[in-house]
Amino acid sequence: MVNITFSESIGSILTLEKRAQLKQIHENLYSKKGKGSDFLGWLDWPSTLDQSFMEKVEKTAAQIREKADVLVVIGIGGSYLGAKAVLSALDPYFKNESALEVVFAGHQVSGEYLKQLLAHLEDKRVMVNVISKSGKTTEPAIAFRFLKEFMEKRYGERAAERIIVTTDAEKGALLTLAEENGYERFVVPADVGGRYSVFTAVGLVPIAAAGYSISDLLAGAANAEELYNNTNFDENVAAQYAAVRHQLYAEGYTTEVMATFEPKLSFVQEWWKQLFGESEGKEGKGIFPASVSFTTDLHSMGQYIQDGKRNLFETFLLVQEANEDLSIFEAENDDDELNYMAGLSLHEFNHVAYKGTSSAHLDGGVPQLSLTIPKIDEFQLGHLLYFYMLTCAYSAYMLDINPFDQPGVEDYKNNIFKLLNKPGY
Amino acid sequence: MVNITFSESIGSILTLEKRAQLKQIHENLYSKKGKGSDFLGWLDWPSTLDQSFMEKVEKTAAQIREKADVLVVIGIGGSYLGAKAVLSALDPYFKNESALEVVFAGHQVSGEYLKQLLAHLEDKRVMVNVISKSGKTTEPAIAFRFLKEFMEKRYGERAAERIIVTTDAEKGALLTLAEENGYERFVVPADVGGRYSVFTAVGLVPIAAAGYSISDLLAGAANAEELYNNTNFDENVAAQYAAVRHQLYAEGYTTEVMATFEPKLSFVQEWWKQLFGESEGKEGKGIFPASVSFTTDLHSMGQYIQDGKRNLFETFLLVQEANEDLSIFEAENDDDELNYMAGLSLHEFNHVAYKGTSSAHLDGGVPQLSLTIPKIDEFQLGHLLYFYMLTCAYSAYMLDINPFDQPGVEDYKNNIFKLLNKPGY
Repeated sequence: MVNITFSESIGSILTLEKRAQLKQIHENLYSKKGKGSDFLGWLDWPSTLDQSFMEKVEKTAAQIREKADVLVVIGIGGSYLGAKAVLSALDPYFKNESALEVVFAGHQVSGEYLKQLLAHLEDKRVMVNVISKSGKTTEPAIAFRFLKEFMEKRYGERAAERIIVTTDAEKGALLTLAEENGYERFVVPADVGGRYSVFTAVGLVPIAAAGYSISDLLAGAANAEELYNNTNFDENVAAQYAAVRHQLYAEGYTTEVMATFEPKLSFVQEWWKQLFGESEGKEGKGIFPASVSFTTDLHSMGQYIQDGKRNLFETFLLVQEANEDLSIFEAENDDDELNYMAGLSLHEFNHVAYKGTSSAHLDGGVPQLSLTIPKIDEFQLGHLLYFYMLTCAYSAYMLDINPFDQPGVEDYKNNIFKLLNKPGY
Repeated sequence: MVNITFSESIGSILTLEKRAQLKQIHENLYSKKGKGSDFLGWLDWPSTLDQSFMEKVEKTAAQIREKADVLVVIGIGGSYLGAKAVLSALDPYFKNESALEVVFAGHQVSGEYLKQLLAHLEDKRVMVNVISKSGKTTEPAIAFRFLKEFMEKRYGERAAERIIVTTDAEKGALLTLAEENGYERFVVPADVGGRYSVFTAVGLVPIAAAGYSISDLLAGAANAEELYNNTNFDENVAAQYAAVRHQLYAEGYTTEVMATFEPKLSFVQEWWKQLFGESEGKEGKGIFPASVSFTTDLHSMGQYIQDGKRNLFETFLLVQEANEDLSIFEAENDDDELNYMAGLSLHEFNHVAYKGTSSAHLDGGVPQLSLTIPKIDEFQLGHLLYFYMLTCAYSAYMLDINPFDQPGVEDYKNNIFKLLNKPGY
C-alpha cells in the first residue's frame, strides 16, 4: 500500500549487483542469520500475534477510559515515539473535551514540565502507564518516582489499580516495583528493540486507550509483513527504497530530507528519524535523517533545499486522500485575488504544491523519491510503520551495519552516571 | 548575555586573517554597503524604535485581551515563526484556561486543520491578526478568506473591529482589503525581511496580546545591538560564532546540529533553522541547519551524532537558570534505584547530562560549541534572537552570500502558480 516513484535522475536502481545483494540480505533477514538477529522479534510479530494478548490490551484500554480523564504515558525513545507518532497522526487538532487525554512524561527531564503536569492533574482522574524495556532508563524512572508519589497521595492503597507497567518479562527495577506493588503488567519482548516496538504493548496500550483500533493497526502491519516478504524486488517497495537510499548515499548524498504535506505526520517523521538514525548511524557511516513539513517549511528550509549545498536528497511522504477537507469558495469581492482557485480543495492545493515543489527542487539538483499512502488511518499507519522498519533493516544491512543495536548511546550514559557518582560507575 | 565556549579541538578561531575578514564585514554591515543592504532595517531597529509605535501595539494587545478568548494569528515563514518561537518559550506547558488562547493559521494548508479550527472557534470570542509582508502569500491568503467569512457571519458589520492587518505600508492585496474594510493596520517595514521581523509588529502584536512584555523583549534586543557592535572581536560573541561556523564548514563539517536541554526552545530552534537555512543556503553553499531536543533525542538522534558520518558539528544552546524546578526526593523504598540522586534538581540533572553528552560526542569526533543564556524571559529572548540575526549576517557574508534574499523560493512558487493557471503565470 506504499507506492514509490523516483526522479529520472536516479536512473535504474535494481542492477544485477543490487539484486544479488538484496537477495542475500533478504535471506539473512528471514532466516535470522544477519547481524543482530537476536532482535528480529518484530519481523513476524503482526502475523503471529496471540489473540488473547490483544484482548488483554483492549480490556485494559477500556478500563483506562472508564476510570480516567488523563492517561500519563511515561517513556522515552522507542517507548515514547511509536505511540506519539500514531496518536499525533490520528488525534484531532483541537482537543475533544470528552475524550481521554493522553499526556507524556519522562520523555525529557524538565522540572518545569513535571511541576506543571502535576498541577494539571490535580482535579482530574488519572491513570499511569510507565514503559521502559530495561526498567532502569533514567528519565522515565525520575518521572515515575514523582507520579507514583502523586498517585499514592491521591489514591492511597488503590493507587496500584491505576498504574500499568510495560517492561521486560524477567528483569529490571520496574519489574521489581510492579511485582511488589501488584501493578498490572505488560511485557516488552526481549527480542524487540525500542525503535521496533510500536506494535507491542509499548505502543498498543496508549493507542488503544485513546480509542483507536489496534486490530486495524496490526492488520495493516500484517498486510505489509506479507507484501514485502518478496524476493521479486521489482514488486518489493521496501527493498527498492533501501536500494535507492544506498545508491544515493554512495553518490555523496549523505542527508535525507523527509518531506510531508500533512502536519499530522510530524511525529511519524520524528519516529522515522529515530528508526533510521539509531539503526544506521554507526561506524562513521549512515545517512543523516532530517525532516520538513510543507508547505510550512517551504518558507523556511525551502531555500536551502533548492539552492544550498548539494549533499541532500528528498523523500516525499504523500497522502492520497484527505480525511477532512475544505474547498476554496468564490468570493464576491476578489480583493485577495484567490478566485482563480475557486473550487480547488486544500488537499488538492497541497498536491499541486507537491508537484511544483518537486520539479523546482529537481531543477535545483536534488534527487527525489516519493512514497505515497492511500490515507491516514490505523490500517495504513500500521502498514507504513512496518514498511519503514523492514526497509530500515535492509538499508542498514546494505551498509554492513547491525540495524538493531545502539552502541553509541552507552558513552554519554556512562559519563552521566560517573558524574552523578552512581553506584557501580 | 550570550556566553560562548568551543571544544579545544576547534583551536584558535580569531586568526589575523579572520579578524581582517570580520572587520571588513562589520564595516560593510554597519555602513550598509554589503550585499542586500536594502534589508538592514532590523540592525538598529531596537535602539531607534518609536515609543508611540510601542504604545499602539500595547493598546491593541489590551483590546484583544479584553474582547477575545482566542486570537487567530495568520502567517507563514517569518510572519509565523518569530511569534511562535517567543510564545512557545514563555507559555506554560498546559493551557491556562483564563488566558488568551493564541492559535495559528495559514502556516500550512490543511483543510482538516482549518475545518477543526473553525469548529473550535464556534463558541468563543475571536479576533484575527493576519500578517503578510507582501500581502499576497498564498497560504495566509487562503486561511484569511475562510476566517474573514467566519468573522463576517459571526459579527456582521462589526467584524472589521476584530481584524488586524500587518502588511506593507504601500502595496499588496492585504493592504487593499484593510483599507476597504477599515481594519486596524500595522506596517511591516520595507527594509526588514520576514525572518528578521520578530521585533516589528509582525512578532510584537501576537506576543503583546498574549500578555508578555514587549518592552523587555526590545530592551534585550537593544542590549544585544549595543553589545555586539564591537570590532574588538575577542569580546564579540556574535562575530566569534560566525567565525567558528565558517571554519568548521571549511573543514567539511557541513551540518550544524543545534542541541538544547530545554523543550520550550524547540520553536526557537525552528526559527533559527529558517534564519540560517534561508540566509545561507544559496549558490550551492551553506551549513545545513538541524536541531535536536535533549535528553529526548539522545534516545533518537544521539546514536547518529555519536557514531554516524563525521560531517556534523554540534552547537548547544544552554540555559543557566530554570524558571521552575523540582528536586529528586529520597524515597523510603529505593526499588527504582534513584536515591543516589536525591537532592539533585531536574535542571541540575540536565546540566550533568549536558556535560556527559558533550564529552561523549567530543570523543566521537564531533566539534562543539556551547552558547549559554542566563534564563528564559522576554529580555533574554530578545537578546538571543537579535544575537542570532546579527551572527547570521556575519556568517552569510563570510561565505560571500547575501543574507537577506531568498531567490530559491521563487522557483516552486512559479511552478505552483503555473499549475494552477494563476492569471499572469
